[in-house]
Amino acid sequence: MLTQEYKMKVKDLYGKSNIVLTDTELASIDYADFGLNNIEEEGLNLILYVNNARYCAKEMVLLPNQTCPEHVHPDLQGREGKQETFRCRWGKVYLYTDEPTDVEKHQVLPPQQSCDYYTAKKEIVLEAGEQYTIDPRIKHWFKAGPEGAVISEFSSPSFDEYDVFTNPNIKRDIRDR
Amino acid sequence: MLTQEYKMKVKDLYGKSNIVLTDTELASIDYADFGLNNIEEEGLNLILYVNNARYCAKEMVLLPNQTCPEHVHPDLQGREGKQETFRCRWGKVYLYTDEPTDVEKHQVLPPQQSCDYYTAKKEIVLEAGEQYTIDPRIKHWFKAGPEGAVISEFSSPSFDEYDVFTNPNIKRDIRDR
Repeated sequence: MLTQEYKMKVKDLYGKSNIVLTDTELASIDYADFGLNNIEEEGLNLILYVNNARYCAKEMVLLPNQTCPEHVHPDLQGREGKQETFRCRWGKVYLYTDEPTDVEKHQVLPPQQSCDYYTAKKEIVLEAGEQYTIDPRIKHWFKAGPEGAVISEFSSPSFDEYDVFTNPNIKRDIRDR
Repeated sequence: MLTQEYKMKVKDLYGKSNIVLTDTELASIDYADFGLNNIEEEGLNLILYVNNARYCAKEMVLLPNQTCPEHVHPDLQGREGKQETFRCRWGKVYLYTDEPTDVEKHQVLPPQQSCDYYTAKKEIVLEAGEQYTIDPRIKHWFKAGPEGAVISEFSSPSFDEYDVFTNPNIKRDIRDR
């Protein structure tokens, strides 16, 4: 399902942000389709810079209007769930968390075919240069604007295979660890 | 000692890297002169993105040939010293650590007036897109190439005021915490 055309679109978006990446990094992009076979709508693309016992950093790309499905980072073996800071580097990203909110009107909608699996409703809009920190155990999903988005993630260590997705059909295969 | 001209040079270098920064961030740059009154030669400029109990991220600038003085991040209250990953985003940086090395020939020299306080000899050269992780308790210093450098730092939490510098004349005033 992963076409060369799809991969080129992702690499082009990294290029638009002017972030310099090595050939090895570009060859190791994790194109996550979450087992939904619908990657242009629900997917996430990422390069893992570092993930050690103390911290993690990634560079992520969302294609135009592409959505990373709702999930949570649970506590693991007595250790608090992953905490992460998203910093938008290029484009625009709409982030939704299950923190309390009074605002019901949202600027973008979740993917229609899976809309039941998107429940978090607090909206945070990040343009280039803006960032937001998601606390442990906060359910969240995020969707790019019409031009796509490049997002740096700074976080505590990643254990992506333990992420809990709201959509029970999701399988997260991990390539880059 | 900190002139408007100096500050403009730093901001121009951030600009060259195409990293998008908010006006608030640009107004809060930490121009560290380490109490040496010689900032063009020995100094470091940084923007703190996030520093919480679990991780830290900064965007650093070195002007052309500017050097960040040798220091180490000690263990603190039973917690391992800071571990950090430098990722060069723009320009070139020469990093020296006190890890074992057989190579004696180096591409750049430490500042002449303080050369006694630069002892780490393992050379790691980072161009844009390249990165290196410095383990806890490893003494290190780093110097930009002739065009300067923009360097992202991903790390465990920062406690800059506890850094131990080789040069006993150094005072590290912390602004951005």
